Amino acid sequence: MKNSFFSRFAPKESKFFPLLKQLSEVVCTASDLLVESLQYDTTEKRTDYYKQIKALERKGDKLTCLIFDELETTFITPFDREDIHALASKMDDVIDGINSCAKRITIYNPHLISDSGKELSRLIQQEAMCISKAMDELETFRRKPGILHGYCNKLHDIENQADDVYEFFIKKLFEEETDCIELVKVKEIMHGLEETTDAAEHVGKVLKNLIIKYA
Amino acid sequence: MKNSFFSRFAPKESKFFPLLKQLSEVVCTASDLLVESLQYDTTEKRTDYYKQIKALERKGDKLTCLIFDELETTFITPFDREDIHALASKMDDVIDGINSCAKRITIYNPHLISDSGKELSRLIQQEAMCISKAMDELETFRRKPGILHGYCNKLHDIENQADDVYEFFIKKLFEEETDCIELVKVKEIMHGLEETTDAAEHVGKVLKNLIIKYA
Amino acid sequence: MKNSFFSRFAPKESKFFPLLKQLSEVVCTASDLLVESLQYDTTEKRTDYYKQIKALERKGDKLTCLIFDELETTFITPFDREDIHALASKMDDVIDGINSCAKRITIYNPHLISDSGKELSRLIQQEAMCISKAMDELETFRRKPGILHGYCNKLHDIENQADDVYEFFIKKLFEEETDCIELVKVKEIMHGLEETTDAAEHVGKVLKNLIIKYA
Repeated sequence: MKNSFFSRFAPKESKFFPLLKQLSEVVCTASDLLVESLQYDTTEKRTDYYKQIKALERKGDKLTCLIFDELETTFITPFDREDIHALASKMDDVIDGINSCAKRITIYNPHLISDSGKELSRLIQQEAMCISKAMDELETFRRKPGILHGYCNKLHDIENQADDVYEFFIKKLFEEETDCIELVKVKEIMHGLEETTDAAEHVGKVLKNLIIKYA
Repeated sequence: MKNSFFSRFAPKESKFFPLLKQLSEVVCTASDLLVESLQYDTTEKRTDYYKQIKALERKGDKLTCLIFDELETTFITPFDREDIHALASKMDDVIDGINSCAKRITIYNPHLISDSGKELSRLIQQEAMCISKAMDELETFRRKPGILHGYCNKLHDIENQADDVYEFFIKKLFEEETDCIELVKVKEIMHGLEETTDAAEHVGKVLKNLIIKYA
Repeated sequence: MKNSFFSRFAPKESKFFPLLKQLSEVVCTASDLLVESLQYDTTEKRTDYYKQIKALERKGDKLTCLIFDELETTFITPFDREDIHALASKMDDVIDGINSCAKRITIYNPHLISDSGKELSRLIQQEAMCISKAMDELETFRRKPGILHGYCNKLHDIENQADDVYEFFIKKLFEEETDCIELVKVKEIMHGLEETTDAAEHVGKVLKNLIIKYA
């Protein structure tokens, strides 16, 4: 379970970059599946996609745990431990959010997913791509922080867009929907999607903090 | 983005007190607007107040970020970094809570805000004033912690009062309201208000911790 | 409020184990009361159990605060401060979760608690017992981590079981329940129960982290 005494001193910091990149790829794949799943309205398809996303959520959990373990047993890390910890755990939160959306869609099983719901899922996908590209900058942003800074701003903008989509939709839903049970289903699913766009922006906040500290 | 090498050593700790005070004033202004907004029941007025509160929420975000940046780049801080961090982020949580309440009122747009809802907003306002006054004690509480301790106790008492108001109201709501959609709206708004009184009490817990550590 | 200068150096680390054990016993008693309370469907009984659980929640709060205070004023701790902090605060989260369930049952006052709800409460009780037994291992797991590891795995398994119970039930609820207000009540209570099983698993994650760091 624990590295041997000497292996702790070996230069291992380089392993954190590929691990974080790998985790960001799980975020991407999960968001792709979410976007795809919203094209289908049958119970079977929804259940099937949820299973796939749940498998990714477990993969993300294991990767995050592995990163935490490595943090405990590595002497020299490329950034402060707490920064790597925050980066991994915030990416894991995005995957958890996507999983929670897929779960709600499956267990509430609403008649339809609205266009606004589909739009939110595509915004999550765009954020996931941003995060994944940002991971490629981790090794070099100290010298040229501009690119990473750009991804942070983009994450912030996408989240603002998502806020508008969400608020506009919910307002209309509460004005027009007369079937209360359907309203509850849709409200909870849309709220889950909106919270996931928030979670993705939090990754951007951690990245911005890295720039302040190290660039 | 980063302070110069020498400026990091300059005695800058004193800047944290005015920044924290400033943040507490945003909490106060936001709570004042919330109380005021609940006197109106039209969509227009609600939307208008939400915009004003949202602007404050962004101001609070920026101030909190500024405090975090200063923490990263200042060598000597008046308390442990983590304590200033906790104080700022918990105050920011209160502003976020108020913003979330205003948002829910705007997008759910219920017929009326109950007297209990108005009462909760006034309790949030009282908590905000407590927090703001507590910030004036930060420089001196090591010598005379009694006043700060008093504010902590008051925050705790107000939160208990809010709990009672909330529970009594929700119990009655679920017994009497027959319009399910209206029930969902009101339940979510009241829950947001109650969570905001909790968030304000959390500031009190951070302050109590400061007394234990430093007084 | 503060220990004297010399008393801080006295070997006091041993006090953390009994305090953590005591907190785990509050988790157990609260979960026992929750299981018991679900056998009754009257408003009076529900209110009565909620009062008892609320008293335990306050007891848990005080114990957690005491542990935090001791952490601030003790020089030598058996594990890193942050680990003891995490352990106490995650156990406190379980008690808060149980309290929130009892509160929801009392203020929403649904007609019946389903068999699935009762099952979830028994799973919380099993998790509580696991946590309490795990506390007995804290002094010795460095030499033989197997037993503690077993409790972590058990917590993980129980949480997975709870997920299945919850998802299966909610799916059926949204298919079959036609009374929207009753649906909202039951959904929120079941969600509270499921979140509490999650909170208990988080204690397991903290324990697993201890094994990685120290065993």
